[in-house]
Amino acid sequence: ATSFLFTEYQYVGVFMIAFAILIFVFLGSVEGFSTKGQACTYDQQKMCKPALATAAFSTVSFLLGAITSVLSGFLGMKIATYANARTTLEARKSVGKVERNIPEDDPRNPAVIADNVGDNVGDIAGMGSDLFGSYAESSCAALVVASISSFGINHEFTSMLYPLLISSIGILVCLITTLFATDIFEVKAVKEIEPSLKKQLIISTVLMTVGIAIVSWIGLPSSFTIYNFGAQKVVKNWQLFLCVAVGLWAGLIIGFVTEYYTSNAYSPVQDVADSCRTGAATNVIFGLALGYKSVIIPIFAIAVSIFVSFSFAAMYGIAVAALGMLSTIATGLAIDAYGPISDNAGGIAEMAGMSHRIRERTDALDAAGNTTAAIGKGFAIGSAALVSLALFGAFVSRAGITTVDVLTPKVFIGLIVGAMLPYWFSAMTMKSVGSAALKMVEEVRRQFNTIPGLMEGTTKPDYATCVKISTDASIKEMIPPGALVMLTPLIVGIFFGVETLSGVLAGSLVSGVQIAISASNTGGAWDNAKKYIEAGASEHARTLGPKGSEPHKAAVIGDTIGDPLKDTSGPSLNILIKLMAVESLVFAPFFATHGGLLFKIF
Amino acid sequence: ATSFLFTEYQYVGVFMIAFAILIFVFLGSVEGFSTKGQACTYDQQKMCKPALATAAFSTVSFLLGAITSVLSGFLGMKIATYANARTTLEARKSVGKVERNIPEDDPRNPAVIADNVGDNVGDIAGMGSDLFGSYAESSCAALVVASISSFGINHEFTSMLYPLLISSIGILVCLITTLFATDIFEVKAVKEIEPSLKKQLIISTVLMTVGIAIVSWIGLPSSFTIYNFGAQKVVKNWQLFLCVAVGLWAGLIIGFVTEYYTSNAYSPVQDVADSCRTGAATNVIFGLALGYKSVIIPIFAIAVSIFVSFSFAAMYGIAVAALGMLSTIATGLAIDAYGPISDNAGGIAEMAGMSHRIRERTDALDAAGNTTAAIGKGFAIGSAALVSLALFGAFVSRAGITTVDVLTPKVFIGLIVGAMLPYWFSAMTMKSVGSAALKMVEEVRRQFNTIPGLMEGTTKPDYATCVKISTDASIKEMIPPGALVMLTPLIVGIFFGVETLSGVLAGSLVSGVQIAISASNTGGAWDNAKKYIEAGASEHARTLGPKGSEPHKAAVIGDTIGDPLKDTSGPSLNILIKLMAVESLVFAPFFATHGGLLFKIF
Repeated sequence: ATSFLFTEYQYVGVFMIAFAILIFVFLGSVEGFSTKGQACTYDQQKMCKPALATAAFSTVSFLLGAITSVLSGFLGMKIATYANARTTLEARKSVGKVERNIPEDDPRNPAVIADNVGDNVGDIAGMGSDLFGSYAESSCAALVVASISSFGINHEFTSMLYPLLISSIGILVCLITTLFATDIFEVKAVKEIEPSLKKQLIISTVLMTVGIAIVSWIGLPSSFTIYNFGAQKVVKNWQLFLCVAVGLWAGLIIGFVTEYYTSNAYSPVQDVADSCRTGAATNVIFGLALGYKSVIIPIFAIAVSIFVSFSFAAMYGIAVAALGMLSTIATGLAIDAYGPISDNAGGIAEMAGMSHRIRERTDALDAAGNTTAAIGKGFAIGSAALVSLALFGAFVSRAGITTVDVLTPKVFIGLIVGAMLPYWFSAMTMKSVGSAALKMVEEVRRQFNTIPGLMEGTTKPDYATCVKISTDASIKEMIPPGALVMLTPLIVGIFFGVETLSGVLAGSLVSGVQIAISASNTGGAWDNAKKYIEAGASEHARTLGPKGSEPHKAAVIGDTIGDPLKDTSGPSLNILIKLMAVESLVFAPFFATHGGLLFKIF
Repeated sequence: ATSFLFTEYQYVGVFMIAFAILIFVFLGSVEGFSTKGQACTYDQQKMCKPALATAAFSTVSFLLGAITSVLSGFLGMKIATYANARTTLEARKSVGKVERNIPEDDPRNPAVIADNVGDNVGDIAGMGSDLFGSYAESSCAALVVASISSFGINHEFTSMLYPLLISSIGILVCLITTLFATDIFEVKAVKEIEPSLKKQLIISTVLMTVGIAIVSWIGLPSSFTIYNFGAQKVVKNWQLFLCVAVGLWAGLIIGFVTEYYTSNAYSPVQDVADSCRTGAATNVIFGLALGYKSVIIPIFAIAVSIFVSFSFAAMYGIAVAALGMLSTIATGLAIDAYGPISDNAGGIAEMAGMSHRIRERTDALDAAGNTTAAIGKGFAIGSAALVSLALFGAFVSRAGITTVDVLTPKVFIGLIVGAMLPYWFSAMTMKSVGSAALKMVEEVRRQFNTIPGLMEGTTKPDYATCVKISTDASIKEMIPPGALVMLTPLIVGIFFGVETLSGVLAGSLVSGVQIAISASNTGGAWDNAKKYIEAGASEHARTLGPKGSEPHKAAVIGDTIGDPLKDTSGPSLNILIKLMAVESLVFAPFFATHGGLLFKIF
């Protein structure tokens, strides 16, 4: 994993410097590199720093952020690591299970180590930095809006810190919640795992609601004004409490719905497992339909929290709702990390040739882990939607637009093209995993054919080559989707202007959220449908099994299709919508002044 | 098929009467059932008929339209027939090919007749009425906008007829195009089929461009005004020509892109076929990625035509662009009907025990037919997008809204929920096909197990029960998706009001188009990837085949998944977006006056 990160950082470094120059030149050019102060966009009576100062500050901040990111492993790495993890998984499953009929984590399979590495970088480093990104971005969005509201104008320091106070309370709450798990309710049996993880979520949400109420009561004046697209809006402190709380509870609802659709304790996954009876095709159809259906309630939950927080406190409300959803992040991350840890523990147990009883236990833990991973993804997607909306609002404010009217051709074409982008992006990421997996499959086949004694277990396979293939593939394959994300706002902003760009951002947001949720849940459901058949815990499950039966084979096919959906395309769409919004926000003044070249010519 | 239609009509009849009453009551209540004339929405200086008159006219028109529809078999029937066709197809493939290892169209398979019936009602009656619907709706949308523009106000009869003149020229052009196919370029070999069908499309498009130019030059005054959301916009006749032409050529581009992605003569389908080497899972991943990728260019083509026609002539421009895209419909329909005809011919040949050479020929025709069917669907989806936008514009005008601002919570929640609806709808339709197929599979299995001599071919299977199962299933299963389409505008309009409804319409339009295109193309590509392997026409294809090899089995799984995608979910999304727009348009005055109850209460 270290060699992987090092290669990665070389690419990131080059990209970073190029982009820093771009930011400085573009933002500096807004007022022709003048050093004079200008009237502010949000209030024409005030004087603001010149554009050149903004350019310099932005560039420095970008570099600072980029370096911090590199240290914690962010940005493009995520797409890469997801792809990395899945590439191997694909290959391992295809060759190992389907072709050679050896167990998934058998040490004879050369791709198994690469898969364990992938689970770590993909599910933990990847998802962790995704959630961390949302967290940081929603805090920043809230702070940006607050700075041009009455808090900032009157220099009310405590109120300015409101977003950070919420985060701090969140950490405290999660610490207390952990005590419940370790000391008050102890888990004794395998079937208590999932309820216990669920209880953690509920406890932290209830405690957090109290925490937010306290912070809102103490930290905020009873009434204040918030900047709202050119006007100031009066907000009461209890309204802001409701904004945060609605985000928090929407998160819990999303978590529960995700659990219902991806856990094999409920009928949706059992139906999918049952459909394996008639073959892989019905399994795929039912799984896709399940994913589509699982979108309904989360979208309503997101819509309600958008409506409440938008109505009460405009974009500031949206930003703090996102923070609310993420405030129980410590519990969420713990639950999310749970899956890969049990998966790898299982892998190690199998490779070390430990007894079957141990493998059975790690499998049960892993099945719970698939569900909790899906819950983690649900949180990530929901909060990404809110954060992107807040950033979109900040972009619109900064670009000086007051309406984004769908009834104008510029906005409408943006909307429809924006709604297409997640498909384009998913096509790239899925195809990447597919073709990298093909390469890996060939390598594994080659090793089985050329290394004597491998199948018998007397020789060690060449694990290193497999890790290298997936590393190279993930870095090479991350470039086209990364370029799509980074270039779209630049091209649209420069050639079509800020109205079309607003349309693109709104379109990709509303369309991307749906694909991300359905892809994650479809993948999770297939994985657990397979586990359901393998575990054979109920009468019904036993009629479908055991391992190696026709329904089980169909379930394995579904699981293999689901991996790129739930671990690559789905979560990386969060990056698409957030990163495009951030980038647009950074370049907003430039696009507003010099953008829309095409419309200026004609 | 007749008994199917009869049962169908009973349901439609009840629905029709209920809906007619609803229309009358809702629209009549707009001004409290007053019989006095009112100031017009589009021009406050003029007096218009009272709302009660509008209500009465709308109700009578609805009934008239409904009766006409029933005669030609429209509306809900389509969803039903699609589902019908695919239910059987699924079952036939699963049991026949996979379980009993008998050929697809073997007369011993009880589901084979039901499949032939399904091909007819689904692909021909279904797609035909879909295209017919778009045609009629775009003509109406154009006429509605024209009536409140200078044409209508000054009673310029010839100009009012412009949309109908375009359609008439279209029929002439298609007649001439047919001459080229039958008399000038004769098809002599199998591999000339696809190029010849393509040539037909190009010829009709080129001729049509000339036709439109003539009609625009003769039929229109050189300058006139068009109603544009509360203002009048001056339009030149050459601008209107460009609106129609851009729609026409966008249609051709969509057709060609679809052909590229679904014909097995090009690399995308060959790559999908190649991915079958590593199993069904990679086949599914590559197929889905192909579908997502195939969305890119059509969306750009649609965006360009929307931009050009919207900028030149507002919603009138959009409506005539849709007409332009559909003006070569006669050629399009002929090409579309081609597939099911060859498919059924093949089925009959197989059932009649005709020689293998005949079956090979019908298979080649059928493969070309899959591509042309995908082209037909491309046209249907592209035009549905334009038509829905035109209807959306008409709705907005009629509801008296002048801006649909994404930066308001009401519109934004509409947008995100609207973007979710196609997923909900697809989940319903896909699941319907899946569960109906399960029933059919059980029936077919039962027949194989209980009817002695069936497998040996000495006894006839019970075809009638299979037809009945699929008929019942399709009618029962069509109710939930139908209800979703019909109730959404009513619920949103009544409780959330016209702004949110505008958001819902825009959201479902931009998101539905993407799913529809990708679903159709993914399905078409899988079908042809399978045919590519079966035909074994190239060196590469022969390495994957023959029938029954592992890659071929993987291809069959893809094909079976693709059927509900390309024949049910995909095309029925056109109905979703068009029908919701039409319904909103009908009830627009009611929603504008009495709608938005929830916001009035809080």
